[in-house]
Amino acid sequence: MYSTNDQSKSRLDLIRQRLYIIIYGVNTPAGKAFDIGLLIAILLSVFTIMAETVEGIDSQFHNELIVLEWIFTILFTTEYLVRIFVSKKPLRYIFSFYGIIDLLSILPMFFSLFLAGSHILSSFRILRLLRLFRVFRLIDFMEESSRLKVALLASKAKIMVFLYAVLIISVLIGTLMYYIEGPENGFTSIPKSVFYTIVTLTTVGYGDMVPTTALGQFFSMILMVTGYGIIAVPTGIVGVEIAKEVGRKLNSNSEQQKFRTSLNGIVCAHCNKEGHRNDADYCYSCGHHLKS
Amino acid sequence: MYSTNDQSKSRLDLIRQRLYIIIYGVNTPAGKAFDIGLLIAILLSVFTIMAETVEGIDSQFHNELIVLEWIFTILFTTEYLVRIFVSKKPLRYIFSFYGIIDLLSILPMFFSLFLAGSHILSSFRILRLLRLFRVFRLIDFMEESSRLKVALLASKAKIMVFLYAVLIISVLIGTLMYYIEGPENGFTSIPKSVFYTIVTLTTVGYGDMVPTTALGQFFSMILMVTGYGIIAVPTGIVGVEIAKEVGRKLNSNSEQQKFRTSLNGIVCAHCNKEGHRNDADYCYSCGHHLKS
Amino acid sequence: MYSTNDQSKSRLDLIRQRLYIIIYGVNTPAGKAFDIGLLIAILLSVFTIMAETVEGIDSQFHNELIVLEWIFTILFTTEYLVRIFVSKKPLRYIFSFYGIIDLLSILPMFFSLFLAGSHILSSFRILRLLRLFRVFRLIDFMEESSRLKVALLASKAKIMVFLYAVLIISVLIGTLMYYIEGPENGFTSIPKSVFYTIVTLTTVGYGDMVPTTALGQFFSMILMVTGYGIIAVPTGIVGVEIAKEVGRKLNSNSEQQKFRTSLNGIVCAHCNKEGHRNDADYCYSCGHHLKS
Amino acid sequence: MYSTNDQSKSRLDLIRQRLYIIIYGVNTPAGKAFDIGLLIAILLSVFTIMAETVEGIDSQFHNELIVLEWIFTILFTTEYLVRIFVSKKPLRYIFSFYGIIDLLSILPMFFSLFLAGSHILSSFRILRLLRLFRVFRLIDFMEESSRLKVALLASKAKIMVFLYAVLIISVLIGTLMYYIEGPENGFTSIPKSVFYTIVTLTTVGYGDMVPTTALGQFFSMILMVTGYGIIAVPTGIVGVEIAKEVGRKLNSNSEQQKFRTSLNGIVCAHCNKEGHRNDADYCYSCGHHLKS
Repeated sequence: MYSTNDQSKSRLDLIRQRLYIIIYGVNTPAGKAFDIGLLIAILLSVFTIMAETVEGIDSQFHNELIVLEWIFTILFTTEYLVRIFVSKKPLRYIFSFYGIIDLLSILPMFFSLFLAGSHILSSFRILRLLRLFRVFRLIDFMEESSRLKVALLASKAKIMVFLYAVLIISVLIGTLMYYIEGPENGFTSIPKSVFYTIVTLTTVGYGDMVPTTALGQFFSMILMVTGYGIIAVPTGIVGVEIAKEVGRKLNSNSEQQKFRTSLNGIVCAHCNKEGHRNDADYCYSCGHHLKS
Repeated sequence: MYSTNDQSKSRLDLIRQRLYIIIYGVNTPAGKAFDIGLLIAILLSVFTIMAETVEGIDSQFHNELIVLEWIFTILFTTEYLVRIFVSKKPLRYIFSFYGIIDLLSILPMFFSLFLAGSHILSSFRILRLLRLFRVFRLIDFMEESSRLKVALLASKAKIMVFLYAVLIISVLIGTLMYYIEGPENGFTSIPKSVFYTIVTLTTVGYGDMVPTTALGQFFSMILMVTGYGIIAVPTGIVGVEIAKEVGRKLNSNSEQQKFRTSLNGIVCAHCNKEGHRNDADYCYSCGHHLKS
Repeated sequence: MYSTNDQSKSRLDLIRQRLYIIIYGVNTPAGKAFDIGLLIAILLSVFTIMAETVEGIDSQFHNELIVLEWIFTILFTTEYLVRIFVSKKPLRYIFSFYGIIDLLSILPMFFSLFLAGSHILSSFRILRLLRLFRVFRLIDFMEESSRLKVALLASKAKIMVFLYAVLIISVLIGTLMYYIEGPENGFTSIPKSVFYTIVTLTTVGYGDMVPTTALGQFFSMILMVTGYGIIAVPTGIVGVEIAKEVGRKLNSNSEQQKFRTSLNGIVCAHCNKEGHRNDADYCYSCGHHLKS
Repeated sequence: MYSTNDQSKSRLDLIRQRLYIIIYGVNTPAGKAFDIGLLIAILLSVFTIMAETVEGIDSQFHNELIVLEWIFTILFTTEYLVRIFVSKKPLRYIFSFYGIIDLLSILPMFFSLFLAGSHILSSFRILRLLRLFRVFRLIDFMEESSRLKVALLASKAKIMVFLYAVLIISVLIGTLMYYIEGPENGFTSIPKSVFYTIVTLTTVGYGDMVPTTALGQFFSMILMVTGYGIIAVPTGIVGVEIAKEVGRKLNSNSEQQKFRTSLNGIVCAHCNKEGHRNDADYCYSCGHHLKS
């Protein structure tokens, strides 16, 4: 009994280990195939959900789409359970960022058994793609996204100032536009006027609300030019971070290069001078052999 | 009598001082709590005013909203009077930028007693948020906004040239579009055509006025590509300032480095001068041998 | 006879000279007053023309506006004649850029005597503002605009490549959209489809033509993201020029500073070393007095 | 027979060579004239096709336009055959990028004999303009476009991250908007909601779909500000590449300077090495005194 138990345990461990490599591994063919398969499955399942909301498609293929969605959900549920199974600390996975996303991407379908329509929320499983950056050339992607993250964190204060300014401007101008245009011209409330202000300031310009009074048009023109101009601010925010980053790189590069290519810090034993060429045999100042 | 008067005076001074620390202080818990409370009160009062303009909400909760607005107004009025009370130079506060904003944010409600509807202007009290930058991490915010201010002031001339160009282009193309499209296609006047030009140049594009003639569409396409292109100008304006700022930083860095690499801090034993070349044998100032 | 003729001639010359200083001068009070007066007159005359196209205003003040326009035209005609009178080479002024603009800004009003409505073109006199950069702080403005001009000229080839690419993309996608959407969805001709493509690519988005087929919406989404992305190209074009300009400045600065602040090229008469501090009295290498 | 055959062959070779120079040459007058002629022919033929889709023009000049299109097609077909004739490796030309474009630009017209309407696809011959960059100042253009290509390739990973993020955001927010607004407000399906999300995120803003619920407007405002802000990302992507390029240039400049200032070109009389420090007395390589 003891040995079989031990054997089955070690067999289970072996399966667990193999599955772990397939699911979390990147460099093995199996791991790569699994990632690409998962990527395709996620995209197809999202397209299935989308297709179901298009009336023309749904009326023709309703049952097929439902079956497809259940297949994908069972697939992802199995994957979720396997992920828990292979984790050394299952609870840690379950409550991790990706663990919660994995759960949220299967739950809506089961909820739809009780609450019709809720399965549409399954399309949030598009978030699972976040993990699949690694399907592409891993290191480049990680580097780029972490660089963007660093830049965003570094400019947190600047972004807050920017959003603060946008908030104040939009409430101010929104109130002004509500006063100038009034409900008779479609500016039925301040929240709607604020919506108009944001639509204009960000140069989106839906055109569902448009100023019709001369004064309203005048203020809108100022708002547009302002919005057109302050787009330079977020660009500048990122620009500063980039310039800093590049500056840091250039600095460290030039420092390294200076030492490598031209002069070094070896001290002449005879005259104590330093700053010789890397390939120097004799001191430039006293002519003493450097290696002696 | 004398001593009680003196006592009451010093007591008043103490209250004044304590209130001053609460209202203007940043680093004390009481000061921080006051700032956060004020921030929430301002946002809530603005939301109250906004809500009143939304018909669905107003018809149901009209009286409650009015009461809320009066509560906020009394609160802000009390705060305004306390601010005057604790100021050592009350007039200076009253006529300061923030003093005027504080007054303007309570006046509309009182005016509304005589002139219905004017209390809507209370939402301008959103401007009070400007002072509350300090609720967040004070120094970062102040630095960023002052940096933006410096950059904007430094590029005043550039911004003027840009606005001048926008003005000339929009009047020119506006007149042209009025001539080409004419009132029958919605371009009823030159001011409206100028409005259309700005809407197009800033890539807002409401779509309330759209060229229908071939020539009008042709000129509009040129206008769009121009507008799409000259967005680079404000971006460039900020870019120059950023590059200058970074350059200034790099410069001061490199200056320090130059001092380190070519000149050093060795002190001449004879004349006490420092800043000799790293490879100097003799003092530049007195000619004394440095190593002796 | 001779002397009076001579006197009147010299008097005329004096008047001519004085007028020249007023019209073309910048630093005299009279010259500045003339420029500001001209600026206001141009703006007012343009506003008058604009006002005439607004039905509400025109129906009430038609005659007043016409009188105003004639006053401005006579004013500008007088100015034009005086400019010819004071020029030493009148023909050169007449055929100069500003001379032609000056003429074009008065002609439409006279044409309107024969051809009703043509006086609207008088609003092109807004171009006269170009000359009035100097009303503001002259040198800053000139520098900024010439800097922008240099940057634009330097990136001529890049701008051409960009416009070439926009042309090819818009014809290609325009044809595609015409094929996909067809006249039944508002894409009545290829030129209109090209118009739609430019409207989308530049993120203007009027919304007068909107794709309704799934394929059309798919291509439009690609077009939008492309347009949203290639805005980086003109920004980058200007960015390169700015970086170059700043680089050039930093280079020349650091070179000058190196010589001024730290080391110079004086050669020691004793040991032929150079690179002494500017305030050095003795050679850093041999201790010889440098000025001896 | 032999000699005439040989002669005719050499004559054919001569014709082939001359045609080759005309078609592919740039610097000869004939080559330049051919390129400009081709440029004009392509543009005119594209305009002809466009004109045919405009109802007003087509109804009046239908036959003329068809004749023109056939003339252009025969012209381009002749050119295509000549290009094959003059190529030393005709198959290589036929299956090259430009060879396929050349073929595709004549095929639709011949297909239109069997399938009415397909000749419209001839407007894809606008792609032939790609080859005609060389009509303009060749080297500048080539350099700029290759530089843009290098920058785009270098930032491939960044662009992928950006598009990945746009994809995930648009599906997420698209689903959310579908849920919030629903078919009754025009958000009839998730694909349409995704279309709306992209339209808003890229600040295009057609206005054919507009949120009407408070929650939908709130999320849309966040979306707009996000879209307005992340435009900095593509700008930043190009910015990094530009900064790198400029940095590379500056680096190589400073390297040259370093060589000038710290190391010089004095040649050691003993071992012929160069690259000594400016203040060196002895050769770094052989220890020989440099000035002796």
